[in-house]
Amino acid sequence: MKVVLIGAGNVATHLGWRLKQIGAEILQVYSRTEESAQTLSKLLDIPYCYTISKINRKADFYIYAVKDSALPELISQINRPEALHIHTAGSVPMDIFKLFAENYGVLYPLQTFSKDKPIDFKKIPLFIEGNNEHTINTLKELAAKLSEKQYFVDSEKRKRIHLSAVFACNFSNYMYSLANEIIAETDTPFEALLPLIEETADKVKYLSPKDAQTGPAVRNDEATMQSHINLLNNNPKALKTYLTVSEQIKETHQQ
Amino acid sequence: MKVVLIGAGNVATHLGWRLKQIGAEILQVYSRTEESAQTLSKLLDIPYCYTISKINRKADFYIYAVKDSALPELISQINRPEALHIHTAGSVPMDIFKLFAENYGVLYPLQTFSKDKPIDFKKIPLFIEGNNEHTINTLKELAAKLSEKQYFVDSEKRKRIHLSAVFACNFSNYMYSLANEIIAETDTPFEALLPLIEETADKVKYLSPKDAQTGPAVRNDEATMQSHINLLNNNPKALKTYLTVSEQIKETHQQ
Repeated sequence: MKVVLIGAGNVATHLGWRLKQIGAEILQVYSRTEESAQTLSKLLDIPYCYTISKINRKADFYIYAVKDSALPELISQINRPEALHIHTAGSVPMDIFKLFAENYGVLYPLQTFSKDKPIDFKKIPLFIEGNNEHTINTLKELAAKLSEKQYFVDSEKRKRIHLSAVFACNFSNYMYSLANEIIAETDTPFEALLPLIEETADKVKYLSPKDAQTGPAVRNDEATMQSHINLLNNNPKALKTYLTVSEQIKETHQQ
Repeated sequence: MKVVLIGAGNVATHLGWRLKQIGAEILQVYSRTEESAQTLSKLLDIPYCYTISKINRKADFYIYAVKDSALPELISQINRPEALHIHTAGSVPMDIFKLFAENYGVLYPLQTFSKDKPIDFKKIPLFIEGNNEHTINTLKELAAKLSEKQYFVDSEKRKRIHLSAVFACNFSNYMYSLANEIIAETDTPFEALLPLIEETADKVKYLSPKDAQTGPAVRNDEATMQSHINLLNNNPKALKTYLTVSEQIKETHQQ
């Protein structure tokens, strides 16, 4: 299995590392930024390039782990229709490859990646789609080597899964951010919130998030909510979020 | 150290368990619900009662772990001003004890508790306040036995810390809840989101939540956001939250 890895960001870094672990032969890494290409090249001990014309045309697999907006140019210029082309994006339909490849698909890892933070790739749910049986079988085999969890979904469903991840990850992180602004005013370090954050994330392994819901809104504790609203008069963003989310929690649990 | 534990809910259960571990002598547990009193009484192997008049008047410590609205009646009726009275609530001022006790304070554990889920009490940050030096020293000593993390804050700050916890815990859990509604439409189990939720919670141990922020809003990726908005036309709550939170993330990161 000869791979060219297109991209050198967070996803490409972790995926490249995992591909090496399972014994894939990575011929080359490409990034339009020389420095990024070089960094990942060193980490994986493989060649790199940073112009599209220099991308190795002898691979069986082209794996695209770049930002959505960079995909069309790359896909249209590699010009290896008989190879297998795979992107890793949640929101981009598989058919982006249609005019440029015969065999193509998607392998979307549902996780948030940071370059410097190791992650157990085996635990990452992978969402797979392929344009024909051959591709689907090849992707199944690859995914089963990369991770313990694979799902088959079409592009429409994958888009919804990505949206769901925005709530589970990006928006919960934003709640941590507002919590940080509020606790900072008491000279208490954010660190004091970490056991609570960890336990909240852990709880939903055992209870559905609806059953795990606690707090003044679910109890309809108007006195506490009013006192919270008063405390937020210096933070209009946190206030707006407090009112919106509390109202929704109340409605959900009155039904 | 002779304690009476007032309450038999989640906080009382975990605190009672921990008090036994550190060798405190719990004389009795009180709950106005006989069944709850009995359950905790069995778990801790101590007597119980469920009427205020039967509460043991011979303790040195009365620890109140009941819902905020139940505190005034209990505090005003126990009538042991010379004992040390402590409540565990985030939002209730210490002075609720003022007319009824000479020695009083607060020990607020910053955590979310479920009755059936064990928790490492030693890791829970405890927020302490006391009305005089004797009380403060006693609470310091007690808190140091209960947990590795103690903070001293007044009632005003504690109220803000509790509000911060609403964002970090209740509101992030609500984001999981919306994520669950959205992923359910794709026939993918909520379970597939768990590694992402865990990693998101883990990331803020190493990065501030502001630096950890990812997603279409922080990148100002209008195309993806518009496609998400279209997908949410059947879920008005999720749509409203999406618009509110995305707008705030954009604003925060443009500054």
